[in-house]
Amino acid sequence: MRFVTAEKNGKQFIGMVNEALDQVFDLKAIEVQMNSSSSIPETMIEAISQGEVFLERVSHITEWALLHPDAEGIFPIEDITLKAPIPKPSKNIFCVGKNYADHVIEMGTAKDIPEHVMMFTKAPTTVVGPNEVVMSHKNITEQLDYEGELAVVIGKEGRGISESEALEYVYGYTIVNDITARDIQSRHKQFFLGKSLDTTCPMGPMLVHKSLIPNPSQLSVTTKVNEEVRQAGNTSQFIFSIQKIISVISQGMTLEPGDIIATGTPAGVGKGFNPPRFLKAGDVIEITIDGLGTLRNKIED
Amino acid sequence: MRFVTAEKNGKQFIGMVNEALDQVFDLKAIEVQMNSSSSIPETMIEAISQGEVFLERVSHITEWALLHPDAEGIFPIEDITLKAPIPKPSKNIFCVGKNYADHVIEMGTAKDIPEHVMMFTKAPTTVVGPNEVVMSHKNITEQLDYEGELAVVIGKEGRGISESEALEYVYGYTIVNDITARDIQSRHKQFFLGKSLDTTCPMGPMLVHKSLIPNPSQLSVTTKVNEEVRQAGNTSQFIFSIQKIISVISQGMTLEPGDIIATGTPAGVGKGFNPPRFLKAGDVIEITIDGLGTLRNKIED
Repeated sequence: MRFVTAEKNGKQFIGMVNEALDQVFDLKAIEVQMNSSSSIPETMIEAISQGEVFLERVSHITEWALLHPDAEGIFPIEDITLKAPIPKPSKNIFCVGKNYADHVIEMGTAKDIPEHVMMFTKAPTTVVGPNEVVMSHKNITEQLDYEGELAVVIGKEGRGISESEALEYVYGYTIVNDITARDIQSRHKQFFLGKSLDTTCPMGPMLVHKSLIPNPSQLSVTTKVNEEVRQAGNTSQFIFSIQKIISVISQGMTLEPGDIIATGTPAGVGKGFNPPRFLKAGDVIEITIDGLGTLRNKIED
Repeated sequence: MRFVTAEKNGKQFIGMVNEALDQVFDLKAIEVQMNSSSSIPETMIEAISQGEVFLERVSHITEWALLHPDAEGIFPIEDITLKAPIPKPSKNIFCVGKNYADHVIEMGTAKDIPEHVMMFTKAPTTVVGPNEVVMSHKNITEQLDYEGELAVVIGKEGRGISESEALEYVYGYTIVNDITARDIQSRHKQFFLGKSLDTTCPMGPMLVHKSLIPNPSQLSVTTKVNEEVRQAGNTSQFIFSIQKIISVISQGMTLEPGDIIATGTPAGVGKGFNPPRFLKAGDVIEITIDGLGTLRNKIED
């Protein structure tokens, strides 16, 4: 199942995208027609927290919708506005730094390849959806850079999760662009400030349930800027696997439904070029990951 | 005004502490008796977001309560359980690293005194209240350490806040203990993981409105472990003032009501001793700041 947070006529809803990827089902609106009531929640985090109950309900709603193609709440995908799947995370986004060796080397030397998971965060105020504007922040940075990344969304609460059980705690996957102000990142030593400018975490287009991504460790990650390929990596190149990352974070910290973990970016960021190729107003960034679609955003002033 | 999030008979409420610091008023329960209805919110973040409206309502409720000492919802402070003033922050806690020169030197050398604000975060899952248990996490760290800190709570939304207007964005102040696993902090380079173990952000006992703290840059900060004074600093020693910190964070990031900024810790942390004096099961940590009371927690297994 592919879930979206979407907006139609100013109303936000949780939707499901059909197999052909050309329609979105407003789950609550459709369930109301089936049952004259609905317990589909208002937010994706609540939906995730419902676990199997939500997934079973979605199955029923989808079956019914396919038999009632003229029902209300079935929209051509181009008629709705996609938001970030989780537009307002309930905590900062967890981010792994330096998780592809080639990227570590382009930013420094092979000596910088980490022995242990390096983790920082992005404030929830950074999140925007597909096609939403990314601010250039040109008054405070001259080094805005893109980072295409696979993001893991946690499905259930856990602490002390072992690597062997880690994927049981995953709900699904989406794409994030971990946009970074390189000058602010290096000036303030700890990465947080340079990673947390407003609108610098585009996310989406969909939250794809893990059942559709049988091998998350074998996904190509491609980033284009103005249609030129800049990053072409594969999650098989991870230094730290998804299982390892979840296990390390949760050693002493409880992970909760809706938590988002960005897994690091492959080689090819703007700072890695000589001379560097930072983002500028008008640039269009497109990140494509196998099975997760394409996340497209434009830099504005 | 001194606000608390408190619990009585399993019910959580927003309370106000009286002048004598011996009673807590359940604001909603009292307003219901005044008006037969109440719009006092359920959470401190909502209360803060209401701004002046909330403060005026609290004035009326307090006046009425003082005239009706036998009303329901007036509790001796020892009869209620204090929670963290903001038990569930809506994002990670902002933390300033290295903001007292003496502390920087005890952790390294004077060369480490930062030129720019260093900022990292603690996950919201770290928050516990006064007298709540702090886990020892002894299976994953041998270097649990205390850090007594003044915390600033933001009152209204803003971005690009200048130093001269920064204090207008402050709602009030509280105490946090930025408990840190030093071994995890250094192993993972970025501070986040070592700062985010469950229960490692005791907060409270009260959220004191800024009107009662006319000069936040002149507050003594004292930390005792098992009644021995370990830290005795003053916010006048800050490298970066509260105004500077708010201005730097908000340059490109929107601050929101209820955001919490821990302002750094003075010299005297366990790691600063030779040999180091890390926390162990049974230790009691008490942090006292002028006008904000004492935050007391015990380390358990």
